[in-house]
Amino acid sequence: MKIIIRKAKSSEFKQVLELINELAAFEKLNPPDKKAISRLKKDAFGKNPKFKILVALADKKIIAYAFYFFMYSSFFAKPILYLEDIYVTKKYRGFGIGKILFKELVRISKKNKCISMKWCVLNWNKKAIGFYKKLGAKPISKWIFYRMSL
Amino acid sequence: MKIIIRKAKSSEFKQVLELINELAAFEKLNPPDKKAISRLKKDAFGKNPKFKILVALADKKIIAYAFYFFMYSSFFAKPILYLEDIYVTKKYRGFGIGKILFKELVRISKKNKCISMKWCVLNWNKKAIGFYKKLGAKPISKWIFYRMSL
Repeated sequence: MKIIIRKAKSSEFKQVLELINELAAFEKLNPPDKKAISRLKKDAFGKNPKFKILVALADKKIIAYAFYFFMYSSFFAKPILYLEDIYVTKKYRGFGIGKILFKELVRISKKNKCISMKWCVLNWNKKAIGFYKKLGAKPISKWIFYRMSL
Repeated sequence: MKIIIRKAKSSEFKQVLELINELAAFEKLNPPDKKAISRLKKDAFGKNPKFKILVALADKKIIAYAFYFFMYSSFFAKPILYLEDIYVTKKYRGFGIGKILFKELVRISKKNKCISMKWCVLNWNKKAIGFYKKLGAKPISKWIFYRMSL
């Protein structure tokens, strides 16, 4: 199987969206609604992109994607690559595609002189947690992550 | 006491740095070293700023600051204001300056159509946790925050 990893093209947005919907269903979360979809396309491919999309292609189809952007550590004065989403469609799991995507994210992080990569995982997603552990990632234990809805 | 809240000017970097060092000492973390300080200035006031600095002034001095930048929620297709640091120097605590800074961050979040604000707090920092609780913020419980050092 030939796997290509590269930036998504705006013409591929519809294919990426299908995978986003799959991920939302898997995570038992609401997928983006109609208005959110139009914002998402603009925020990805518009003038000032708010995040970046990596895709994996096999058999000329998009079979996996990752959304990421950069955070910043003040004390290290270095960026952090934040992985918002990573997803491999069911049919193509077990071929190491998630790992290949992840390694590309590591390469991008290093190229951008990041101090680390960060992301969140649902506490019941044991498979993902096992995957991250194998990669050498660790849960951030001393800090509590807070949210204030607006 | 007259409090002014506004964006930091690059000429104020040295004053902000003093507060960063105070915060690092309080958090028992290493403050930015010489090289990090020079990156920090460039990343704040250079061509493509990686984060933004709000300051509070009283008695013509900078007595509090906040570092922030924007994350992004894919499912909501909206930005999130991430508060990297917020700090009020000891002498000026108890006057509600942290709250004023926070309210300005809420205003900025709403102006930028953010879905939420997020930040991290050290698990032993009970005073800060109490402050965030009063503001209506909640710890993110279903998600585990991961880091991979590079």
